[in-house]
Amino acid sequence: MAHYIPQGFRFASLYSGIKQDTSRSDMTLIVSDVDAVGAGVYTQNLVCAAPVVLDRSRTPGSHFRSIFAISGNANACTGERGYRDAVRMAELAGEVLGTPAESTLVLSTGIIGHFLPMETIEKGCREIVPHLASDETALDGVARGLMTTDTVPKCFTKKVLIDGVEITLAGLAKGSGMIAPNMATFLGVVLTDAKLNPAAAQKLLQNVADKTLNCVTVEGHTSTNDTLLMLGNGLSGSADVTENPAFVAAVEEICEAMARSIASDGEGASHLVTIHVHGTKTVSDARKIAREIAESALVKCAFTGNDPNWGRIVSAAGYAGVAFDVAQVSLDVNGFRLFEKGSPVAFDAAEVSRSMRENREITVDLRLGEGTEEIRFWTCDLTTEYVHINADYHT
Amino acid sequence: MAHYIPQGFRFASLYSGIKQDTSRSDMTLIVSDVDAVGAGVYTQNLVCAAPVVLDRSRTPGSHFRSIFAISGNANACTGERGYRDAVRMAELAGEVLGTPAESTLVLSTGIIGHFLPMETIEKGCREIVPHLASDETALDGVARGLMTTDTVPKCFTKKVLIDGVEITLAGLAKGSGMIAPNMATFLGVVLTDAKLNPAAAQKLLQNVADKTLNCVTVEGHTSTNDTLLMLGNGLSGSADVTENPAFVAAVEEICEAMARSIASDGEGASHLVTIHVHGTKTVSDARKIAREIAESALVKCAFTGNDPNWGRIVSAAGYAGVAFDVAQVSLDVNGFRLFEKGSPVAFDAAEVSRSMRENREITVDLRLGEGTEEIRFWTCDLTTEYVHINADYHT
Repeated sequence: MAHYIPQGFRFASLYSGIKQDTSRSDMTLIVSDVDAVGAGVYTQNLVCAAPVVLDRSRTPGSHFRSIFAISGNANACTGERGYRDAVRMAELAGEVLGTPAESTLVLSTGIIGHFLPMETIEKGCREIVPHLASDETALDGVARGLMTTDTVPKCFTKKVLIDGVEITLAGLAKGSGMIAPNMATFLGVVLTDAKLNPAAAQKLLQNVADKTLNCVTVEGHTSTNDTLLMLGNGLSGSADVTENPAFVAAVEEICEAMARSIASDGEGASHLVTIHVHGTKTVSDARKIAREIAESALVKCAFTGNDPNWGRIVSAAGYAGVAFDVAQVSLDVNGFRLFEKGSPVAFDAAEVSRSMRENREITVDLRLGEGTEEIRFWTCDLTTEYVHINADYHT
Repeated sequence: MAHYIPQGFRFASLYSGIKQDTSRSDMTLIVSDVDAVGAGVYTQNLVCAAPVVLDRSRTPGSHFRSIFAISGNANACTGERGYRDAVRMAELAGEVLGTPAESTLVLSTGIIGHFLPMETIEKGCREIVPHLASDETALDGVARGLMTTDTVPKCFTKKVLIDGVEITLAGLAKGSGMIAPNMATFLGVVLTDAKLNPAAAQKLLQNVADKTLNCVTVEGHTSTNDTLLMLGNGLSGSADVTENPAFVAAVEEICEAMARSIASDGEGASHLVTIHVHGTKTVSDARKIAREIAESALVKCAFTGNDPNWGRIVSAAGYAGVAFDVAQVSLDVNGFRLFEKGSPVAFDAAEVSRSMRENREITVDLRLGEGTEEIRFWTCDLTTEYVHINADYHT
């Protein structure tokens, strides 16, 4: 897939010695040639990692020059020393780039409860600068450098024309459930050469995250490190487009692509599953129901077995803590009606099962008939491979 | 294990033709020779089965004579016809026993969304009465007749002496996660010859359930049929002991034994896991944290692999929605300290792993240092066998 590169961004990645596997890169650097507006959305976990604490204190802002990321160590549950290490990572990037320490945001993902190997990181950071480039290979290298148990790099780019100015967006993400031997993490970065406003960018990113990356679940275990960052450096020459509908739609498209790719690449997954809940009184109601369905081990095992088991789906909706009239509920799987107005419907189970088997993607449409709100949620199925991945690797 | 039989109760079970497997009983009848006080605690699922609707409308009360149960069909998501069938089950038991229809409580567990085979049930009900007996074999037969995917029958009995009167309690339960091909269900019955008061019995049963059966999770999927009933017929000659501490303790002991047996028999389980959360401000806080830990697929897979992965446990606590100071948290697994005052502790991972491998039971003690409340929660690990059981059987 060909990618577009936002103007004024450069990328580098290398193997610095953090991961065991010397064939995989574990350090990445993203640089903006000029000050960029930055926003961030972070994990809700009370037990959050040091880089989350640091980045949260710095965003939103308008003076960002780089994002420095490592994979293989989460720098989580590492106390005050971990926080000092995160601050030091930002300082190191500033030193090698000749930019203020406060202009760097940091990311990390990997094992929990281990202190960062700061000598290794310092050495890597001093070696990475000459690798900076603004071509597709360098961009792809960053997507690969963020990977842990991901099986595919996750990079999505888009161009959008607004008032005659061509704006480019690039989204880079990692996440596939959790990493051996420890913890799930989603990390995502949206880069654009659009001109943005810090406060509006923060609001936009939160809104988009609520509709996309906050609608993804692999196993419902909220990571200590989840982070979504956005940088806009204005080098396209655009006006401030932060609230422009075409720009908002482009950011949403990038983030939805990230969300789908993470669910699809969920550990051991054999299906990407889209849960679309329609007809609730509020979006919050739809979210609660979609999440319970998406996180039910029963439902996920049914998808693994290509089993149109509507009872598991309807009953998961029933314990989401949202009041609804079961007699109004209907349910489709891959477009086949399985349950209507609260009663079972005769359907050809073999035909539905075949449809599930032959498509990597399964679509569930649950209609409640209580209102006009809706939400889409993405997840994957639960396979024996998932259990192997997470039971057979040890700390 | 020898069992005690509460006075004035009789038991019968048989294969009536509901289950496919003709070697397993699928119909059970429990009769009290005199009117018994009855209480019930039911599923919180909005999508609840017809017998739950019926029993909930009848308990608490003081005129119960029988419990009529079938396994193999949940009578859930069956609409008005399902409710009429549940009412008819109670009428049938009343007819064959010569007791009022309203004196029967009904239970069902099994596949969702199928109407009950009422002719089969009527035929079975007319044949079951001659089998009624009050010996241990008959009691054990009921425990077996309730089983679906359970691998062991669950029956616990106890004698307690209160004010010189010997009172007997018997607890019968089924539940192991979910049943092929459909739905999890816990069903439990506590029988006693103690004299009880209906309103106080209802309160007692709810309190005990909150500390025992509401602290069990296999995969967090709340069944449409969960039911815990208690009958007390007074034939021991006791005074009203409903609020007597020794009686309360005995009911709690029976229900805790049920709770542990269900977690231990969770589908595919290789470990019974007790999560003990200490030092919260409220019991509700402790419950939220214990439940998040117990339902984390990550944590459960770590137990499967005998992996003392404290990062998964601490981070699950962190997203439970309860505020606490991570710097005060400590964690033990099987008595080994792994995490103390918010920081990793040096420990012998091989020794802890060996302890996990050599014991079917794993104990987790998480101390938060925020207050004096606590809770115990029971669960099991997540194995490839669980996925096989729930992915490979089809509707």
